[in-house]
Amino acid sequence: QKSQFALSFSVPSLIAKQSKYDKRKVLHSIKVGIALVLVSLLYLLDPMYNEVGYNAMWAIMTVVVIFEFTAGATLGKGLLRGIGTLLGGGLGCLVAILADKFGKIGNNIVVGTSVFLFGAAVTYCRLVPSIKRRYDYGAMIFILTFNLVVVSGFRADKIIGLAGVRLSTIGMGFAICIFTSLFIFPNWASDELHYSMSSKFEKLGICVEGCLEEYFTQDNEKETQTKADFADCRSVLYSKSNDDSLANFARWEPWHGKFGLSYPWDKYLQIGDVLRELSGIMISLRGCLQSPRQPSTTTRHSIMEPCKTVGLHLAWTLGDLGESIKKMERCPPKALVASKLQSMKLELSLIASPSKLGAVDNGEGLAIASFVFL
Amino acid sequence: QKSQFALSFSVPSLIAKQSKYDKRKVLHSIKVGIALVLVSLLYLLDPMYNEVGYNAMWAIMTVVVIFEFTAGATLGKGLLRGIGTLLGGGLGCLVAILADKFGKIGNNIVVGTSVFLFGAAVTYCRLVPSIKRRYDYGAMIFILTFNLVVVSGFRADKIIGLAGVRLSTIGMGFAICIFTSLFIFPNWASDELHYSMSSKFEKLGICVEGCLEEYFTQDNEKETQTKADFADCRSVLYSKSNDDSLANFARWEPWHGKFGLSYPWDKYLQIGDVLRELSGIMISLRGCLQSPRQPSTTTRHSIMEPCKTVGLHLAWTLGDLGESIKKMERCPPKALVASKLQSMKLELSLIASPSKLGAVDNGEGLAIASFVFL
Repeated sequence: QKSQFALSFSVPSLIAKQSKYDKRKVLHSIKVGIALVLVSLLYLLDPMYNEVGYNAMWAIMTVVVIFEFTAGATLGKGLLRGIGTLLGGGLGCLVAILADKFGKIGNNIVVGTSVFLFGAAVTYCRLVPSIKRRYDYGAMIFILTFNLVVVSGFRADKIIGLAGVRLSTIGMGFAICIFTSLFIFPNWASDELHYSMSSKFEKLGICVEGCLEEYFTQDNEKETQTKADFADCRSVLYSKSNDDSLANFARWEPWHGKFGLSYPWDKYLQIGDVLRELSGIMISLRGCLQSPRQPSTTTRHSIMEPCKTVGLHLAWTLGDLGESIKKMERCPPKALVASKLQSMKLELSLIASPSKLGAVDNGEGLAIASFVFL
Repeated sequence: QKSQFALSFSVPSLIAKQSKYDKRKVLHSIKVGIALVLVSLLYLLDPMYNEVGYNAMWAIMTVVVIFEFTAGATLGKGLLRGIGTLLGGGLGCLVAILADKFGKIGNNIVVGTSVFLFGAAVTYCRLVPSIKRRYDYGAMIFILTFNLVVVSGFRADKIIGLAGVRLSTIGMGFAICIFTSLFIFPNWASDELHYSMSSKFEKLGICVEGCLEEYFTQDNEKETQTKADFADCRSVLYSKSNDDSLANFARWEPWHGKFGLSYPWDKYLQIGDVLRELSGIMISLRGCLQSPRQPSTTTRHSIMEPCKTVGLHLAWTLGDLGESIKKMERCPPKALVASKLQSMKLELSLIASPSKLGAVDNGEGLAIASFVFL
């Protein structure tokens, strides 16, 4: 009854979410199109072209390369590109001026050596996991700019002027990206992380219900809804890298909506880890339930009532937690819910259905862990 | 005794692996440095500069952008870049020539519209998961080249010549990358995937042993090795995205070593999925073992012998499978090992330690699933 309702409720909401996501994709594509047309104006309009000339190319390149799906990713990539260009260009100029003091051959040797040393050193840094995760793109741009400046500094004598024009066109491209990405229907990575977290709670709650349903229904009624639910469960299990990158982008995003500047994104990752562990437990619980050696129907019937109560309560708690995270409200005090779960656990342990209990145990651990956050 | 040996065996091998990985990082950095110096020669040597001029920039850019850690990634990115440039450039030329037939204003309108349409359409394609996974970079380069060609075609009248020189410099950069990446101590993504798969088996085997050890030792001896083992277990659980990208790169790699051209990389991913599920089971089994409600020491003692046998056998089977995958040998026939596991399961079910049995059940499912591959 209740779970039926939950299931029928979740399917349309899933479809709605899907089509909403699709709408956002179309919107994003249109935004990229607009940004490209804007940046092309640098070439197309005569007064602008007279100003920047051939270097307008860099603005186009910037727009194509840094415009990402979420605002945070765009902002982060843009800033890294800017910083990498500045640092690489600055160092490149220094080395080029230095190398100019030696003769023609000496210049070549200095340039070659510096290209090799900086290239190898920065590439090594890019392989360090913590740098790779956050600053990979910036390091790449650093190598690129450094190389271009150092090598062409030897040919073009007016590198400083060249660097200035190039930097300003990159700035223009960046400004266009930021404008279209942040001010026209922005796609915040933080929103996405936030909602994906609450939907994870929802999915697991539905999963718990589905598991109960499957276990306590007759054989002929089986094989209806459960498969889809476990796909959800598995999607939670494998969501780590997605969460990581979203949190990474979310850190770049400025104050907006309900999120402050130093919002605790790490907490989201921790909750995500706990939820992933719970989904692992759910999957293994399902393995236990599907194993051929099952208690008789009567035994099963005898433990049905309390198990259903606990399971539904757990599912309800998960759904509740998800809801309260979504709305950013405080949920009912920790002690209250935890004690309720505790008493249920006791009740259940009287009947001693060990394999099931293992799961509930851990589920509770999860519930408590996530309460610590709220 | 045996597990002690296994543990002490695994720690040095882990360190050796770490330092080997580090050595590969240094090697990679040096290779990038060499490639950068080689490509810089295009600028530094007069006869070459006279040939390509300012366009040598594109060669440098190509090297910096496509040189990745593994040979497969470099090759894949390079090919995608080449294809994207060709397609984008070709289409751009067509549109530019078409636009030239209209007047000045008409030209601008045609160029702007085409930039918007192609930009938006290809960006939408980039968001489709299956395209994003494999061809994202190519699509980006397509947009970039198309835009540059279409917009500058309007200014420079000799776009075909320009495109030719640019393409040839990109080709030079690509050739340098391929040369350094594939012929100087190559880092094959396929090797990495192969070894990471066999080390996963090893890790899980050690994990099973650690779990047994922990469960059956006295309380005062606890808290020594097990934590590290479970970090291993968790690393297996979260290895999906890494495996996916490695398999993706491995597909680009040509015939080399023991791997043929159409090597079944999908099978690796499937085994990886099964192993990840097993590691989820291990983690939840550990939750059960750590829960406060435990059987008395005597009960525990009574089930110790058979549990240890099964566990060690399971660990040994896992290690064996890993070994045989590593060496690409056929392991002992499926029926033999499976029947042995089956008989052990029967033996164990006489004692009925349900929570443990759940895990062993699934472990066997895994073993059988991976046998199907071998």
